[in-house]
Amino acid sequence: MGEFELIRHYFAAAACARVGGDVMLGIGDDCALLAIPAGEQLAISTDTLVAGVHFPDPCDPCLLGQRALAVATSDLAAMGAAPVGFTLALSMPTAEPGWLEAFARGLDAMAANCAMRLIGGDTTRGPLSITVTVFGRVPAGQALLRSGARAGDLLCVGGTLGAAAGALPLVLDERESASNSADAQVLLDRYWSPQPQLTLGQALRGKATAALDISDGLLADCGHIAAASSVQLCIEQQRVPLSDALVRWAGQDRALQCGLSGGDDYVLVFTLPAGELQGLLAAGWPIRVIGHVEAGEGVRLADAGGNAVAVGLHGYNHFNA
Amino acid sequence: MGEFELIRHYFAAAACARVGGDVMLGIGDDCALLAIPAGEQLAISTDTLVAGVHFPDPCDPCLLGQRALAVATSDLAAMGAAPVGFTLALSMPTAEPGWLEAFARGLDAMAANCAMRLIGGDTTRGPLSITVTVFGRVPAGQALLRSGARAGDLLCVGGTLGAAAGALPLVLDERESASNSADAQVLLDRYWSPQPQLTLGQALRGKATAALDISDGLLADCGHIAAASSVQLCIEQQRVPLSDALVRWAGQDRALQCGLSGGDDYVLVFTLPAGELQGLLAAGWPIRVIGHVEAGEGVRLADAGGNAVAVGLHGYNHFNA
Repeated sequence: MGEFELIRHYFAAAACARVGGDVMLGIGDDCALLAIPAGEQLAISTDTLVAGVHFPDPCDPCLLGQRALAVATSDLAAMGAAPVGFTLALSMPTAEPGWLEAFARGLDAMAANCAMRLIGGDTTRGPLSITVTVFGRVPAGQALLRSGARAGDLLCVGGTLGAAAGALPLVLDERESASNSADAQVLLDRYWSPQPQLTLGQALRGKATAALDISDGLLADCGHIAAASSVQLCIEQQRVPLSDALVRWAGQDRALQCGLSGGDDYVLVFTLPAGELQGLLAAGWPIRVIGHVEAGEGVRLADAGGNAVAVGLHGYNHFNA
Repeated sequence: MGEFELIRHYFAAAACARVGGDVMLGIGDDCALLAIPAGEQLAISTDTLVAGVHFPDPCDPCLLGQRALAVATSDLAAMGAAPVGFTLALSMPTAEPGWLEAFARGLDAMAANCAMRLIGGDTTRGPLSITVTVFGRVPAGQALLRSGARAGDLLCVGGTLGAAAGALPLVLDERESASNSADAQVLLDRYWSPQPQLTLGQALRGKATAALDISDGLLADCGHIAAASSVQLCIEQQRVPLSDALVRWAGQDRALQCGLSGGDDYVLVFTLPAGELQGLLAAGWPIRVIGHVEAGEGVRLADAGGNAVAVGLHGYNHFNA
């Protein structure tokens, strides 16, 4: 048995690889088998993280395992899907037991956090790269698409923005990250362990008219909804909720820049008929209204006086892409 | 829009990316959506091909597109699953239009050949690497597993073996592959365009007791069935069907070596109760009996006189792994 075959057995023994739920057959045969309840559809998304492009190399493999699964799983949240499982395609130059143990530990922790099961994958020799394909289920016809936003809807987000982008200087400079600052740690946690808003996504089914998870930055991702829905999204700049830790760490101006154009927060942005807001707030969902939907196209950013703010509509580019 | 965003739009416009069949939503949102008919399960498999490990770099991108999808889809055949669709995670150092056009053309051709639809994926900058995740459906409880072989079953394959391994010297040496030899072309075709035995796999549902597709080599893959089923597989060496083109090209001894230990043929190997054979042969399936299943463990190779042949039970190692 070769070293990469051994790795497959190693992952097969992880806690998150246990069969159960909708997973009828897991790692070890030619395919995994899922049973999807009648009346439900399967939601599928794939994300690749490449060393030196999407994360620094070297980095903490435990954090990398957490982040790789969280980033992919967030796409299920954006569809309002309930988590089912994932496959892992892992390429690495050499099979180092310590690295693998830590990576699998991080993966396992995020899998437990998200109720996801590892159902299969492939492990190969090659430059370090991680492709995670996630599976969720959603009642037929109830998935949250990008294309349903209507003029008059509210524009909302599911939490504060900017912290992950604010963490980038810390992520790229390990000495600085050794700082004891609690604020720096908050930013780093957001970057390395984003929390897919799975329960919020499911709560928005039948209510939100469009949704996605912010990976490219608020402005860019709002542009995706605007384009898919053939509407204009108006963002009121002063209503964009910024991470307190980020404001303290980087100052208001830089924090706003991170909140508008920084990516990697994996917070949901969605459009909501005004009549749906109170019920969701009353249920305790951390929803913040940041603007509204109008007829037109693209994204309009307005200051407190309602005047247009000029913006480059480009979002976050990964730190080396 | 960045160059890799443009690539996503390029793939979204491919013929194989059209929505239809079980695909409710394809490329362009956070997730794709599949509708699986009641009473069916979803079969899922992931395969990664890395440049310089699983294929030579440079190589013909059209052939690479064909092969990447065929290799992954073959796992659906091995489960007896009907094809539904696939995701493509493609990393490449730079976005070259000519390369992408040819790669997509090969992918599209194999997708049409296999009735597969491109439903999503990710395109990133990085060392050249291709991860394909395939989806098929199979009636609940009827998937062909590796674990059902029973003593007394026949051991069968779905076609001739060895050609893909025989092609390796040609694959690695482009001058030689310019040979006009028809036999050389047969070998190269088998390597670059293996044909997933999807219809045979589906015909074996409810009949074969165990199955897989030969990717690591006959001996190694029979070892997988033996281990999963807790039986011994006996292979009669002289019954292993070898590619005629391979025998002419490489000689009988080398051909046998390729047929036993060479990988990449993606022909099905399966175990079959003796009573099922005649019906399948009468229906025209190209099934060849190569041995039988006994109590015991591992794989036993026998010569024409029934005497054990000593073998190293290692299969094919990818040419640079």
